[in-house]
Amino acid sequence: MSIDPVLARVDTDLDASLARLFDLVRLKSISADPAFASDVRATGEHCVKLLTDLGFEASLRETPFHPIVVAHWKGAVENDARHVLFYGHYDVQPVDPLELWHADPFDPKVEERDGVKVITGRGSADDKGQFLIFIEAMRALLAEEGRLPVRVTVLLEGEEESGSPSLEPFLEAHAAELSHDLALVCDTNMWARGRPAITTSLRGLVGEEVKIACADRDLHSGLFGGPAWNPIRVLTKILASLHDDTGRVTLPGFYDGVDDLPAEVDASWRALGATEESFLGPVGLKTAAGEEGRSVLEQIWARPTCEFNGVTGGYTGDGFKTVLPAKASAKVSFRLVGGQDPEKIRAAFRARVTEMLPPDATVTFHAHGGSAGFTMPFDSPVLDAARRALGDEWNVPALMTGMGGTIPVGNAFAKYLGMPTLFVGFGLDDDRIHSPNEKYDLESFHKGIRSWARILKNLA
Amino acid sequence: MSIDPVLARVDTDLDASLARLFDLVRLKSISADPAFASDVRATGEHCVKLLTDLGFEASLRETPFHPIVVAHWKGAVENDARHVLFYGHYDVQPVDPLELWHADPFDPKVEERDGVKVITGRGSADDKGQFLIFIEAMRALLAEEGRLPVRVTVLLEGEEESGSPSLEPFLEAHAAELSHDLALVCDTNMWARGRPAITTSLRGLVGEEVKIACADRDLHSGLFGGPAWNPIRVLTKILASLHDDTGRVTLPGFYDGVDDLPAEVDASWRALGATEESFLGPVGLKTAAGEEGRSVLEQIWARPTCEFNGVTGGYTGDGFKTVLPAKASAKVSFRLVGGQDPEKIRAAFRARVTEMLPPDATVTFHAHGGSAGFTMPFDSPVLDAARRALGDEWNVPALMTGMGGTIPVGNAFAKYLGMPTLFVGFGLDDDRIHSPNEKYDLESFHKGIRSWARILKNLA
Repeated sequence: MSIDPVLARVDTDLDASLARLFDLVRLKSISADPAFASDVRATGEHCVKLLTDLGFEASLRETPFHPIVVAHWKGAVENDARHVLFYGHYDVQPVDPLELWHADPFDPKVEERDGVKVITGRGSADDKGQFLIFIEAMRALLAEEGRLPVRVTVLLEGEEESGSPSLEPFLEAHAAELSHDLALVCDTNMWARGRPAITTSLRGLVGEEVKIACADRDLHSGLFGGPAWNPIRVLTKILASLHDDTGRVTLPGFYDGVDDLPAEVDASWRALGATEESFLGPVGLKTAAGEEGRSVLEQIWARPTCEFNGVTGGYTGDGFKTVLPAKASAKVSFRLVGGQDPEKIRAAFRARVTEMLPPDATVTFHAHGGSAGFTMPFDSPVLDAARRALGDEWNVPALMTGMGGTIPVGNAFAKYLGMPTLFVGFGLDDDRIHSPNEKYDLESFHKGIRSWARILKNLA
Repeated sequence: MSIDPVLARVDTDLDASLARLFDLVRLKSISADPAFASDVRATGEHCVKLLTDLGFEASLRETPFHPIVVAHWKGAVENDARHVLFYGHYDVQPVDPLELWHADPFDPKVEERDGVKVITGRGSADDKGQFLIFIEAMRALLAEEGRLPVRVTVLLEGEEESGSPSLEPFLEAHAAELSHDLALVCDTNMWARGRPAITTSLRGLVGEEVKIACADRDLHSGLFGGPAWNPIRVLTKILASLHDDTGRVTLPGFYDGVDDLPAEVDASWRALGATEESFLGPVGLKTAAGEEGRSVLEQIWARPTCEFNGVTGGYTGDGFKTVLPAKASAKVSFRLVGGQDPEKIRAAFRARVTEMLPPDATVTFHAHGGSAGFTMPFDSPVLDAARRALGDEWNVPALMTGMGGTIPVGNAFAKYLGMPTLFVGFGLDDDRIHSPNEKYDLESFHKGIRSWARILKNLA
């Protein structure tokens, strides 16, 4: 069945879709400020109504903080073998300092900025605009086809801007209800205006704190310096052993499960023109410190790291003290990609520390979290479906990008629901999310709805 | 001329000598406490009178804090070609907590402790007892011989227990008056009861603070980890490069001017029975960290070190923060021996840091002091004179020992007066100096006077 009537419907109904976004933006769902708790709840109720009106079985589910919207499509479906969970969040960031806004953050409108039509207001992009385009895409599909391409469950949380304290317990408690084939998340950016992107990899994280102790008290470096083991010496030897001269991490098995980039992907990333200078220049650097021969984007998006986040030992105040300290410690983190196993990495690190300890030194370890990286396989049919859809809509190939950090919700879906996540978003770097004068490009909104309609069709 | 009549005179006059020590100990010369400032001055005046009565030209010299006693012997001398400066200090440590004293700290007496006769009271050892034995030795020599063996200047400061703030400026201002052939200092310990010792080496010290900076701000380790240089990684690589696997310092030229111990000295130190276990056990360690093949005493007394006294960078509080810090820094010190040149060591360290810096890192250095080590050559005639004197008095060879730390006054004499120092003292490790119930063995006092008489005779 051709997608064209659906896309035409999106175009025809754009003003109505916009009006629904304005209604949403007018609701002051600031989750961080207790004074707005009832606004947050009202926004959740508004979303329930929006989905109920569309034919979903929708309800507001209580949590200890702000409620979560869950809506199931129980109606007709083109391909009932595939069930996706769409995730968004209906809460927004606070708006202060209010005096920096050019207009009321909760009175949205379409205006022109630098020759581009944008929708203004708090949450216009993050994430009200981004999740509404998915709902509007379903609306157009239902209007033209009377069914959805795949089975859909929608989950909208009201605490994302407050650290999502309730989300993981909620997922864990409702895993049977929410665990399906694929999660869709619309909370990320395009590579640039007109250049859609799919985030196909997120790095995981293993945090370790290591404390080395030698003597049972601080010593005078004159009276004991030489014979007495210095824990800073022990610690720095260990830390210095973790990278070789080419920037690779030396732990045995560290790169198990780390695949090289397909040549096509490597070429597409290099073609983006992010040089060491352009990427690092803004923070005062110019040469990449990661593995030799890897582009700066590959280093960030697709390679694992070992970083030292903190180190301390001995006297660190002003002046000088000839102390030979009893203890020294470091906080070490590993960013993980692909199939790296966090607990194997942790064990390899601890083994390295232990084997390098001199007889008189003792070590204590403290684990600070561990989550695997996430990679959507480049040959995944889901990824292919999304790429074709975006390419058709934007007339340019969708870029597959990585993200150097962790998006907690992606890890949570993998951990509690056992399913992969497809991150597609239409935000832009200049959307000023979290800042005064947030906006969402009208093109992102319009073509975003069309894009989601195409993606859903392709997923069928 | 035989020394015997002089020694007999010491024995005969011992009670009078003791009475003079008691008079001294009764004076509450606590330099750290402003409430005792007039007691400190009275003690200085008492010392001036003591030396004037002996025939010295003595005076109290003002400083911004407590006065210094300077006394010149202008009378007859056996060998006028040799002029020594004797150093001691007439101030004492505070006495609190007073309730831990078994008797009034300023009411000295002779009592028996564990079968040993001791002189009790604050300053009985440190340093009133130790400097008075030198004066009493001169008294006996003058009584029997009518002259001193060598020309003598006495310098007694009143601020040693307060960090000697006035001493160096005073030495610098009066270098012509005070600079002679040799300094004698009586403020150190014997190796053990009955086993005299001469401190023939003190280690010097070079302090360096090094700060490494990379990015111009702290970065998120997800967004920048990999490509961005981490200053903790740079710093730990540098610090880890400073020792090889045998504990030697790897800076080029570091060991220039460091001589191996004469076999005889090495054997005498090993014969003292200080094992790694006995030396390090009391602080919770058991294996020596210094250069392989060197005894623990050689490591402390005669080998240079590189120690890390402090290191800091990134997040060091509780919990974890995936920061990629902008800066990291370390405090590094080198203990020096023999002919090592502090400024060459500093330059070699800075060159190592600079050559290991990646292009994006910058470094700033801050110097924290630099003083050469001090070694009395093992074949020095002065040392030989003192060793023969002590061997004759105690019927056992005097041990030549080192000291791992720095005695500031030794460095000051070298720096401002350009002369070596002979450190001979009769304190014992159980003298409880700086603690309640300080004491000085009566044997240390009695044989200490006889020892100084013999040393002065031998120096002639």
